[in-house]
Amino acid sequence: MNPTLYILGSNSATPTRERHPTSQILKIDNQKIMIDCGEGTQNQLLKFGVRHTGISHICISHLHGDHYFGLIGLLSTMSLSGRKEDLHLIGPPPLKEIIDLQILHGGIHLNFEIVFYPTQPDAKSLVIQTKSFEIISFPLKHRIHCTGFLIHELPKGRHIIKSEVEKHNIPFVYYNSLKAGSDFTASDGTIIPNKQLTEDPTPTIKYAFCSDTIFDPEIVKYIHKVDVLYHEATFMKNQEDRAKLYFHSTAEQAATIAKMAEVGQLFIGHFSSRYDNLNLLLEESKTIFENTYLAEEGKSFEIIKAANYLTI
Amino acid sequence: MNPTLYILGSNSATPTRERHPTSQILKIDNQKIMIDCGEGTQNQLLKFGVRHTGISHICISHLHGDHYFGLIGLLSTMSLSGRKEDLHLIGPPPLKEIIDLQILHGGIHLNFEIVFYPTQPDAKSLVIQTKSFEIISFPLKHRIHCTGFLIHELPKGRHIIKSEVEKHNIPFVYYNSLKAGSDFTASDGTIIPNKQLTEDPTPTIKYAFCSDTIFDPEIVKYIHKVDVLYHEATFMKNQEDRAKLYFHSTAEQAATIAKMAEVGQLFIGHFSSRYDNLNLLLEESKTIFENTYLAEEGKSFEIIKAANYLTI
Repeated sequence: MNPTLYILGSNSATPTRERHPTSQILKIDNQKIMIDCGEGTQNQLLKFGVRHTGISHICISHLHGDHYFGLIGLLSTMSLSGRKEDLHLIGPPPLKEIIDLQILHGGIHLNFEIVFYPTQPDAKSLVIQTKSFEIISFPLKHRIHCTGFLIHELPKGRHIIKSEVEKHNIPFVYYNSLKAGSDFTASDGTIIPNKQLTEDPTPTIKYAFCSDTIFDPEIVKYIHKVDVLYHEATFMKNQEDRAKLYFHSTAEQAATIAKMAEVGQLFIGHFSSRYDNLNLLLEESKTIFENTYLAEEGKSFEIIKAANYLTI
Repeated sequence: MNPTLYILGSNSATPTRERHPTSQILKIDNQKIMIDCGEGTQNQLLKFGVRHTGISHICISHLHGDHYFGLIGLLSTMSLSGRKEDLHLIGPPPLKEIIDLQILHGGIHLNFEIVFYPTQPDAKSLVIQTKSFEIISFPLKHRIHCTGFLIHELPKGRHIIKSEVEKHNIPFVYYNSLKAGSDFTASDGTIIPNKQLTEDPTPTIKYAFCSDTIFDPEIVKYIHKVDVLYHEATFMKNQEDRAKLYFHSTAEQAATIAKMAEVGQLFIGHFSSRYDNLNLLLEESKTIFENTYLAEEGKSFEIIKAANYLTI
């Protein structure tokens, strides 16, 4: 199954009655990577039926409240629910101190360990590599230390053609080497080429998350040709001065970055509460980059290799 | 108008799809006193149409997350909304450090001042007195430093009988002394007794908030004969051992405290997520103390002098 992105919230600054602050989950191979965790994220999980079990990694872009005030509550709930598995937490260095202080004074005993990975403010940096994916942080230009995240699915093994391996009586012990691309040498010395026994693996995807940031072409080098780019679009073009003042972007600017970076799809979010009709932002973005979608809470998106749907 | 209590949340520990953690607002003379502020309180304010403007005081009972994780988000929203008025914050001493740390690393510039009043863990203490009310903290027995709060409305001036003061041509400048109970001496030396010119003031009310606490008859002396007692009732009687273990109370125990303290009405809350049907808790409490109500979120209660409705 392809990775799936669940949008839990994508409003900026203050919540509205209908919209909640930034949080999303990328599910890859039954592991869930949460990115940002605004206040009420645990309620959004309940509302949309996404279980917090299986969240192995939480990435926090920066320490503005609409991106992390829900973290401590989610960690508490995880502990009260009996979680035992390590939780890998990625974020700006002070995040650990903030969480630890609240745990200390709340007399909270977490049943699991938080493994903390501080992000670097100035350079692209590989944070974590698992067998399924790697998480890379890169600098964004915002009012405080802020990073974007790249999540690269890692190459998968080739698919074994069951009928072929059975026909040649290839023992199970060789499957891993077949998946890795090796040919098979039979006991009589006959070589059966890998291509006869396996098919190409499912293509892996690249996802980039950029929130919050001023319009900054410098980031194009980090996100070049990703399959899906989430980029903040707090304002519309007629608020461009305001966007610049607060180190945010307009929908048009998000689309311009997507176009420059030749990405597959663009998801826009981090909407200002002033916009009731988000389609105005969508339309503005589409004039520059047609393959744009609104990252509205409650939506989920299957992330597919760009080559499989690229229409631009 | 009598004081009004708005229940914004009254669930314990973790939220459910329908129920949120503790927060309530007592509105007295257009000032709003918030008591506890669990995660998502600002969303609950939006949901129930209670504006955060006018919140002058916030009392935090203790530093378990379901009682304060929504505070930093609410403060941020107040600032983003342009608040200028001082905010009086009452709570355990480390609360200030926790808030300050998040403000520091979030690069937040609050437009208003937070005036902090640390609560005392071991003794009843007058925290604040305004012209309309006083806030008193008193110790509760919980797993960490935890206090209850008494909010006493302060005596109001007597009501001037307009027709009488006009009949005697009493100048406006004497109204304050009439409200305070003085007689009026006319220029010819005639004394007009206050009782002829004024009526009794609206009775003032006493409200007590007790969450979270183990069953503790020691608190009866603090809350004796208050008009309304909010007391936690996390569990039912069949979970009494569990209640004791976690320093919580059952509905029966809350009712027992209400009966011992001879209060007017009892509101129960801080319900465990295990209970879908809260009427079971209500019924258990009513067997001991008939005048019990469920403090369910979204409800508001006019707080009336106990003598005006006492049915026990």
